[in-house]
Amino acid sequence: MQLVRERNKQKKNVEEKLNAVDLVTETDKEVEKRLISALSEKYPDHKFIGEESTADGIKCELTSDPTWIIDPIDGTMNFVHGYPNFCISIGYVVDKIPVMGVIYCPLQDWLFTARKGCGAFHNGVPIHVSHTTELSQALINIETSVRSSDPNKMKVFFENLNTLAPIVHGIRTAGSAVITMSFVAMGGSDAYFEFAVHAWDMAAGCVLVTEAGGVVIDPAGGKFDLMSGRILCASSQDLAQELVKNLKQYYGPRDDA
Amino acid sequence: MQLVRERNKQKKNVEEKLNAVDLVTETDKEVEKRLISALSEKYPDHKFIGEESTADGIKCELTSDPTWIIDPIDGTMNFVHGYPNFCISIGYVVDKIPVMGVIYCPLQDWLFTARKGCGAFHNGVPIHVSHTTELSQALINIETSVRSSDPNKMKVFFENLNTLAPIVHGIRTAGSAVITMSFVAMGGSDAYFEFAVHAWDMAAGCVLVTEAGGVVIDPAGGKFDLMSGRILCASSQDLAQELVKNLKQYYGPRDDA
Repeated sequence: MQLVRERNKQKKNVEEKLNAVDLVTETDKEVEKRLISALSEKYPDHKFIGEESTADGIKCELTSDPTWIIDPIDGTMNFVHGYPNFCISIGYVVDKIPVMGVIYCPLQDWLFTARKGCGAFHNGVPIHVSHTTELSQALINIETSVRSSDPNKMKVFFENLNTLAPIVHGIRTAGSAVITMSFVAMGGSDAYFEFAVHAWDMAAGCVLVTEAGGVVIDPAGGKFDLMSGRILCASSQDLAQELVKNLKQYYGPRDDA
Repeated sequence: MQLVRERNKQKKNVEEKLNAVDLVTETDKEVEKRLISALSEKYPDHKFIGEESTADGIKCELTSDPTWIIDPIDGTMNFVHGYPNFCISIGYVVDKIPVMGVIYCPLQDWLFTARKGCGAFHNGVPIHVSHTTELSQALINIETSVRSSDPNKMKVFFENLNTLAPIVHGIRTAGSAVITMSFVAMGGSDAYFEFAVHAWDMAAGCVLVTEAGGVVIDPAGGKFDLMSGRILCASSQDLAQELVKNLKQYYGPRDDA
């Protein structure tokens, strides 16, 4: 999207959302409005869940209807600062099951696409998760809890980091759930977990990871639930289960609560 | 470099260097050999310090002679895993002062260049550090100490993370010192510090950050020393000093020890 690339060059006019860390820009809102407008013209019966619409007070409810779940800019904090990891994420969900994902990283000009049963692609080239099956061989992604209003979230973060740092190959923090899931799908990262994300951070990425041969589950080992705010992706079932065994759990609010 | 881009697609034949975390690939060695060969043909009197030559037992000594300091692949662990943050870094040092830096990220096709007194550039376009002057407004980069043989290093890492996480805007971990310094230079990241890096991780990047208007000092606040293994870069002197005040220090081995 030309708009996102150009806006990144301009001085950003940032307004505060829920707290100082949760920033949003005019671009965020504009991209979502344009996407919903174009899609609803083509598919007038489809529903939409968008990050910005939800922030504006529209109820976030996932029904069985065909639904587009949109994050106009994932990695908003990166976008605000000009840190290169941000993207546009569009997921398509039918009967509550994510069936299509489109992710675009404007600065890298990387387009990730996936459709249920049809594979995952990076700029048109098929991608696959890595062959890693053990944490001791894994490069993993986490997000650093900063300025969390819940001290328990920070505590769980430090406990997990303390457990994982001595045993994994490396730890990376990209600052965008969607880009991180794209990295897992392309085999660059071996695993990723998050306890407090949103449906729009996961809808497109979970199709991408699954179609690239990866595993998407709840961080406690159960079935993945798009509205739970929780996700664990890994290159293999073995790695996913080993990670589950090592994690302290945190439960944030659900998107549909 | 076509070579690095292509090798990233192939299954990598990894051999162990000093320990399991410190991996090196054939490509690493081949790139360094090619660079030194080409440069020494053109500048037969110049000296070279390279990551791989040093690993092969060549003494790492910085003299006043014109010296090329080369990291054939910075972010080797990322390269081994296929995580997109890796680059080729070439610094040029005269009278022990870094005067030129060239950094190339093959997957993004990003070329960063800087020459003392002539500015810093990203694919030919001038770049500048951010305007951030306070930690509370800063997106900072750190590296996660994993599997360190020195428990004190891990302890200092956790203490610093514990101090910084509640006060900064965000924390990112790219897994490549050189790419991180490029992000600081382009204004995406506001600050970065490391206690155990090498001259070849810093030689090109420190010219880039300085020429982009940033500050490069020792993490304890003193003058930057290329052979010390220690660096702190920031978008401003104020931010650098605030970070210094908040950091617990760690001293690893010097490159010329």
